[in-house]
Amino acid sequence: MNELELVERLRRLSSPSRDLVLGIGDDCAIYRPRAGEELLFTTDQMIENVHFTRAQSAASIGERALARSLSDIAAMGGEPRFCLVALAASQTKWIEDFYRGLLRLAKRTGVTLAGGDLARDEKFHCDVMVCGSVPRGTALRRDGAHAGDLIFVSGRLGRLWDRKIQPRLALGQSLCGMATSCIDLSDGLSLDLHRLCMASGVAAEIDRLPVLRGSTEERALHGGEDYELLFTLPEGVKAPRGVTRIGRAVRGVAGQIHFKGRLLKPRGYDHFRNKA
Amino acid sequence: MNELELVERLRRLSSPSRDLVLGIGDDCAIYRPRAGEELLFTTDQMIENVHFTRAQSAASIGERALARSLSDIAAMGGEPRFCLVALAASQTKWIEDFYRGLLRLAKRTGVTLAGGDLARDEKFHCDVMVCGSVPRGTALRRDGAHAGDLIFVSGRLGRLWDRKIQPRLALGQSLCGMATSCIDLSDGLSLDLHRLCMASGVAAEIDRLPVLRGSTEERALHGGEDYELLFTLPEGVKAPRGVTRIGRAVRGVAGQIHFKGRLLKPRGYDHFRNKA
Repeated sequence: MNELELVERLRRLSSPSRDLVLGIGDDCAIYRPRAGEELLFTTDQMIENVHFTRAQSAASIGERALARSLSDIAAMGGEPRFCLVALAASQTKWIEDFYRGLLRLAKRTGVTLAGGDLARDEKFHCDVMVCGSVPRGTALRRDGAHAGDLIFVSGRLGRLWDRKIQPRLALGQSLCGMATSCIDLSDGLSLDLHRLCMASGVAAEIDRLPVLRGSTEERALHGGEDYELLFTLPEGVKAPRGVTRIGRAVRGVAGQIHFKGRLLKPRGYDHFRNKA
Repeated sequence: MNELELVERLRRLSSPSRDLVLGIGDDCAIYRPRAGEELLFTTDQMIENVHFTRAQSAASIGERALARSLSDIAAMGGEPRFCLVALAASQTKWIEDFYRGLLRLAKRTGVTLAGGDLARDEKFHCDVMVCGSVPRGTALRRDGAHAGDLIFVSGRLGRLWDRKIQPRLALGQSLCGMATSCIDLSDGLSLDLHRLCMASGVAAEIDRLPVLRGSTEERALHGGEDYELLFTLPEGVKAPRGVTRIGRAVRGVAGQIHFKGRLLKPRGYDHFRNKA
């Protein structure tokens, strides 16, 4: 199969959407915004030997590449709309399998593949941009936590990096208008909570953690592959089911975190990678 | 300079925009669509040893990376709004220079840097997504040419790959409501005209070409670095200044091109790369 056939196959696989006036096949995709919506944009790279190795299946990498960006949309309370995929690889079979995994998750989450860019390179890398939507003014942000708010996380933490990512889209949407701040745990609780506290100008006191069976508290604090939501609610607001209250935002040095009474240094996955 | 300082510097360099509710620094950027607008999306990769070598300056690569995506926005008649940049590189100094070049062009064309993703990798690669805007229903597409329309190109063709790209944004916008089809010349006239004719279901007869001084007709036909606009106008519509009528869309086998009476095979830059 050559590349033209591949693009044609992708065009057929790409599910239609009422908002997407034009998808794969022109210089740009065309999106018609709905009345009263604001659009969310995020982009995430997956690079061979940085974020994964060839030992993993192409389909699982495709799914993961989309899931990571969807987790950012979830963290803002958004409903995903469409994605653009920029991809460099050397084998069309590998590319097909990658898209099969990506499109399976896209279908499950209502995302249309709207376009992208394909290049040949021995080293595999991709970049997935996702556009999501929120009603005007309702997006969850990092900078709205107040001293006194309670801090929650979804699920259990300390996941291994090869575990499947389940973007918390429904939870994120349910938090709109309720949570004062939200971030997804992509670089580890200690670092991501530090970022949320820095943005909000608060400190935090954490007194417990929901740790995955078989994992460790250390990994739950500093591991970087959980993709759960970390958010704050004003005291007295009923939390959704399936989340755990882990602590409280407090007055203090912005970004400073105490865990069980001891100062916690942010040291998640940050040796160069940082969301710009 | 570490990455956090780098991101902070980028945030300050990024010019504000009235539509961008939230830029660099959260899980997603937030864009508020204007009444009556449709949004255009395109993404293009630049990969070391595929699209450029280290002999070129980081600033020129940054500028080129944005220019290629802007050329796609121009081809649809759009006004650029913002971009997301996914970047992998090994040296922060190189990254800074890359952004300096990119942001210089961004400023000149009214583009806001809204966010992105940064990773460390020995091999440099980047992906630039640009969002543009057109009044509803006015985007230029590839598929609207009719038999009888006249075919035009902007500028002169046959450029060498290291020449600066000047995205034809003003020309593209001026063609909205006038041109029946448009595409940018990124992979060579023979291939891009073939694509336009395929999408429109027409054939083409080309009888002349504006060739750059010092270049050749061969390069003007099949070279892939012109980034000029190729478009069709109904007969009798006055063409903008600075463009050349090169031929005419005709009934026939869709995508078939005759150049000075002889069949022209599409063979621009296509050995794997293809816009999905």
